Parts: sequence; structure tokens; C-alpha cells
Amino acid sequence: MHAEIIAVGSELLTPERLDTNSLWITAQLNLLGIELVAKMVVGDDRHLLAGAVRGALARSPVLIVTGGLGPTEDDVTREAVADALGRELVFVPELLEAIQERFRRTGRVMAEINRRQAYLIRGGEALPNAVGTAPGQWVRDGERAVVLLPGPPGELKPMFTDHVLPRLREIAPPLVICTRVYRASGIAESDLDQRISPVYKRYPEVAATVLAAPGDIQIHLRARSSASEQAERWLEEVGGRIEVILGDRIYSRGEPMEAVIGQLLRARSATLAVAESCTGGLLAERITSVPGSSDYFLGGLLVYSDRAKRELAGVQPALLEQCGAVSEPVAVALADGVRRQTGATYALAVTGVAGPGGGTEQTPVGTVFIGVAGPEGAGGRRFRFLGDRERVRAFAAQTAMDLLRRRLLGL
Amino acid sequence: MHAEIIAVGSELLTPERLDTNSLWITAQLNLLGIELVAKMVVGDDRHLLAGAVRGALARSPVLIVTGGLGPTEDDVTREAVADALGRELVFVPELLEAIQERFRRTGRVMAEINRRQAYLIRGGEALPNAVGTAPGQWVRDGERAVVLLPGPPGELKPMFTDHVLPRLREIAPPLVICTRVYRASGIAESDLDQRISPVYKRYPEVAATVLAAPGDIQIHLRARSSASEQAERWLEEVGGRIEVILGDRIYSRGEPMEAVIGQLLRARSATLAVAESCTGGLLAERITSVPGSSDYFLGGLLVYSDRAKRELAGVQPALLEQCGAVSEPVAVALADGVRRQTGATYALAVTGVAGPGGGTEQTPVGTVFIGVAGPEGAGGRRFRFLGDRERVRAFAAQTAMDLLRRRLLGL
Repeated sequence: MHAEIIAVGSELLTPERLDTNSLWITAQLNLLGIELVAKMVVGDDRHLLAGAVRGALARSPVLIVTGGLGPTEDDVTREAVADALGRELVFVPELLEAIQERFRRTGRVMAEINRRQAYLIRGGEALPNAVGTAPGQWVRDGERAVVLLPGPPGELKPMFTDHVLPRLREIAPPLVICTRVYRASGIAESDLDQRISPVYKRYPEVAATVLAAPGDIQIHLRARSSASEQAERWLEEVGGRIEVILGDRIYSRGEPMEAVIGQLLRARSATLAVAESCTGGLLAERITSVPGSSDYFLGGLLVYSDRAKRELAGVQPALLEQCGAVSEPVAVALADGVRRQTGATYALAVTGVAGPGGGTEQTPVGTVFIGVAGPEGAGGRRFRFLGDRERVRAFAAQTAMDLLRRRLLGL
Repeated sequence: MHAEIIAVGSELLTPERLDTNSLWITAQLNLLGIELVAKMVVGDDRHLLAGAVRGALARSPVLIVTGGLGPTEDDVTREAVADALGRELVFVPELLEAIQERFRRTGRVMAEINRRQAYLIRGGEALPNAVGTAPGQWVRDGERAVVLLPGPPGELKPMFTDHVLPRLREIAPPLVICTRVYRASGIAESDLDQRISPVYKRYPEVAATVLAAPGDIQIHLRARSSASEQAERWLEEVGGRIEVILGDRIYSRGEPMEAVIGQLLRARSATLAVAESCTGGLLAERITSVPGSSDYFLGGLLVYSDRAKRELAGVQPALLEQCGAVSEPVAVALADGVRRQTGATYALAVTGVAGPGGGTEQTPVGTVFIGVAGPEGAGGRRFRFLGDRERVRAFAAQTAMDLLRRRLLGL
């Protein structure tokens, strides 16, 4: 079963505000097997909102409208939904009494404009508001259901849980949605998708989404069925094949790379140090974003300048002059140097040209050398990452951690 | 002039993800006097998306569609917009060549599916993508304009700035929106708003928004008028009073703190080094996110473990034992140590408890000591930041840079 959400409020169309109610509502709907196919934010405009409601109801059998139920003139949700359904608003004396009673209890006098909140779309049911004055509404229109909820999360959530969920449960077909996530590194998005799409396309019951960040591709699988065993079986079939195809490029079932290498280091009672040039601290920042990372991360060197490479990491001046700061030998020397100085089991070093300046013909912007040193010895690799400064740095940090993961797993 | 935004992607309809591109785009549109009246998220469904595009174009003369321009089968934006406009897609050999060239430069072979990105809606113009493979599109339909942009922010933003803004400027009616931004540090959001709201509330022509990030509050002022002199005059009146009230807590007119300290260091031909414990690289990462920061940033030490504090920064074991790693004397010793080792003019050091573990009664989670060393001597200060690990680290990095700013300005 499909659903849509419309959030009403001109303030949600400014550069500073986001509608976050829809995230919570989506999670609730998904638990019932109801899938969101579109969501929208509309300003406080009766005509535009009525058009949006008509559009949504033409597509989807369930529509949830949040906000715009207050007492002021720019609260137009009641009127707009009534327009869209071609119904009138009916004054309900019991609703007015409930609102007046609420004001009395807090020692205030109800303002005349609050009368507007006592109007119900003909044929609809009022949904009690345990926290505020605005009642919600549940309106059936043939097979369709339209739900009107107040905008403040503190009013919306209890109303949804107490009065909307039970009603939706009655009309939603019994469905279960199971999900599985894979994260992969060391492969381009288009290459990955070309390899795995023949698998997931064979299963119309499994929806697959591929999300790409620098050096980090997420594959989200969602299976729907009336029985959870069936949904899990589909996920297992699709997931199993994807695992075979991508092999060790898959690095986790959802956890970020920094958590994965943390677990690998901890399991081996090993420690890590880093030496960063072009990433400028990003690699260490990601490693230490994991709570408890002090168990395995010792620290390291920020060798942004050549002087720091020489004086902090002990790289030979002759080597820097001969090979250049952005080179494989310097990456290896940095990894070796910081490993020796800190006594860490493993060390990672990154040196490269993040841009926008600093590129040459031999070493264009995006060139990065990553060094890995460990008990088994040290080695370096050249990479070429595309994109702006931020993207090159993100690629470099992610790839450095992936090289360590491969070293730790003996790949 | 009105506009709408449609963000395409089933992943944006899950409970975990939000479309944030629309916020940035809204800010850009507002600068041209273009107002957003609705925005929508639609899944990867060609038919639904075509319907949504038709609905938006019936309401608004400008429509911006983001995402769904990738090479895979579930990238349906090109097809859906073509459907909505009743036009066909045309294969453009030059676009294919540009995509192939991009792959060649990175030493990869273009996957066959990337051919899909070489199709243009008939009558449309291709918008070059400086960062990724997917070209954007600009399509006029009578008085209307439809813009197709790639979803990744790193690709979307330069494309919008370079190729969409100039085209929109030509079709938008001349309404001037003038803006002014202040950024402040060292004051809480509620405190700041209580002080300045009596000022901006007196000017209904000036809209003020206060945005808070850890240690960094932005005040956005927007004045609208048909004449820019009038709008600028209002901004000058409101802004001038705010400057008097906040004084040296204002650190810039929009630039981030790392750019501000970079300019101050460069103007003094001074250099900087850092020693980071609890921030774990975040401070250096922010400093080096500024292109050209190698002019003044030398590097530093990641002294996450006590061992690294001793062996890399040369902190006396007795001092660590006596005062504890999270203490003012250790912060000062770290700043002194890294300044001496690197020969930098100034040094910053951060040591603290980012949490969630590691707090004690004397040194609860959120306690951070920041050391500053320079030609005038060294000193340290204790702070207590509230929030989770990420927030404490962000506060600490921002505050460390603010202390350096104050030192450099002699405040």
C-alpha cells in the first residue's frame, strides 16, 4: 500500500528549515508495510494546497497532511482539504467545548479565532489532541484515507500513535518489509551497479537502491512480503549473490569504515598511528569519531609542510628532493616513520595534491599516495581521485582505511 | 516569481534520509527574488515523477529537479521530464565524448550504461558537470524553465552557480533582495537572540534568522525592495546596531572561522601548528579545508594517547601523572611542545573528554582545555561544552580557533 505526506507551512520553504515530521511518520508507516512514494512541502496557500492534495489522492490511497491546523488565518489545511474533496466544513459544538475546556484548565480565556479549530470536514472523524488545542481529522473518501495532523511533533506523535495507527492497521493489507544494507569500497558506482543490477532485477519483490559517497557505496535492499520468512529468504538470495559478485569489496553490513577497522584492530590487540599530509587531519578525525577509539588509536603526525615531513616524521631531505613530497617513497617513509615513533603495530600515511592549486603534469590535482606499514613490512600505492578538494580528501581518507582493512584481513 | 523543487530518489523517502540540496538551492533562488512555493521528494518511478513534474509546471514557472541523472536504470529523471513535456530524448554524441574523456583521464573504461547520460531532452541545453559524469539540462517550455541537476551536492552546487544562476537572472523580474550575514562565537544562541531581537523586530522589512552550530552562530538578515539602496539602508541600520551589541563576538561577515584565522596569519606572515588530543584531527582538518592553507599551516601532532603526548610532544611523564592528561598545564605543554618542534609562530593544543566514556567527577564529559602558544607566551583555558561526542569536538575546534583569533587581534 502506498502513502504520501504533505507538510504545510511557509516556514518549511525557507533555506533554514526542514520538515522532519515526515521521517518519523515514514518509519511508522513502514512498520505497517505502507510505503512512502512521495512527500511534499507546501506553503500556507489554500489554493496551492488543495491542488497538491488532489494530486496526491490521484496517486496514493493514503495521504497524511501535517501542520496548518492552528487558529490563525494562515492555517489553511482544513479549508484546502475540504476543497480538494469537494466537501464543506461543519461546525462541531463538542469540539469547541473541548477547546474551551482546555483553555479553562490552563487558566486562560479562549480567543475568538480558536473557533476555527472546531470545524470538521463533513464525514470526517475528529482525532483528540492530548497536548494542544488543534484536533486532528480522519476522513475516508471511498477507498482512500486522508489524515490531518497538527505540526508540532509533541502533538503529532501521540495523536498518530493513539488514533491513526489503529485505523491504518485496519485498512492496510498485512505486509512485512525487511531490509539489508551492504557497504563497498574500491569500486566505482556505475561499475558496481552494472555488475549487481542483473541480480536484483530478477527479484521484483526486492527494491535496491545504490548510494555513492567518495570511496563508499551503499546498497540498500528492501523486500516486501506478507510473511517475514519469505521477505528474509528473498533478501538472502539477492544478498548472497551480491556478496559473491562483490567479494571483499564489501566491507560492512552498514557500519562505516572507521568502525570496521576499529573492530579489526581491537580483535588483534593491534594499535594504529597515522601521518597525514593532504588529508590534513581528516583521516584521524574519522578514526577517532568512533567512541572508544583510544583503545587502538595512538595518534600521529600532521605533516602538512615539507618541514614537518622532515622534522616531525624524520623523512630524509634527499628523499623529498629526489622524489618530491607527493610520491610513493615519501608515503612509505612517512608510514614507517610514524610507526617507529609511536610504536604502533600499524601505520597509515597519506600524501597528495588535494587541489585546487599545486598540481603538475606528472602529479596532477587528485594524485594521492597512500603508505601502509606493519609488522609484515611497508608498501605504498598511487591513486588518482577526481573532484574538488573536499572530495579528493574524502576519497583519500576512505581509501587509506580500506587499504588497512585489506592488510588486516590478509587480502 | 515562483519556483518549485523536486528531489528524486527512493532513498530520500526512507526514515533516515532528508533532501538537503533544496535548502541550498532555496537560498540561491531567494537571492534572485525567486520564492519557493512548494517542494517535493519523489521516488525512482518514471510515471509518478512525470506526474509530479506536470503538476509543478501547472503551478510555477520555474522547476528545479535534482537527482536521478546517474547511469543506472533507476535514474529516471531524463525520461520522466521528457514524458511530462511531451518531448523525446535525443542522443548527443558530443556529450558521450565528454563522458568518455572523463573516464579516460582517470584511467578507467566507460561502462556501457553511462551512454544513458548522453541523452538530452529535445530543445534543451546541456549544462557541463565540472566534477562528475552526469551533465545537467536547461529546458525552456514557453515561459517556463525546467532545470535538471545531478544529486550529489559537490556536483550540483558548481553547476547551479556557473550555469543556472546566470540563466535564471535573465528571466527573473528585477526585485532586489539584499542580505547580510554575521557569524559570532563565544555566546549562546538564546543569549544572543535575546539581545538582538529587540533590534530586528523593529524593522518589518528586514527578516532575521538565527542559526546555531557548535560555537558558531549565524545571523542572516534579508531586506527586500525594488530599489537596492533602500534595502541596503535597512540592512545598515539593523546590522550596525547588532555590531554594537555583539562587539568582538562577531568574527566574520559570512566566512568560516578557519578562513578568518588564515587571513590573520597570512597578513602577519605568521605560521601555525596544532597538537590535538580529543578533537583527533578535526581542528587541523578544518584549518586545512581552506585552499592555500599550506602558506601558514605547518602541521602538528595527533596526541590521542598519553604515550603520544609523551613521545611525540615531549610532555613530561611527571606532569601527566600529577595533573592528568586533561588539564591546563598539559594543554600548555602540548602547545609549547608542538610550537618548538615545528618552529611555528603560533600553536594551538586541545585536550579534553569528548565522551561518551572517560568522564570523572572532577573532569566530566565535555571538559576541554585549550592551550595557545605564541611569541608573547603561552596560556590555557578550561571550557565545558554540552552535547554528544561530535558536538563537544566541534565546539572545541571552533573555540580553539576563536582563541587564536583573539590572540592575533590583541583582544
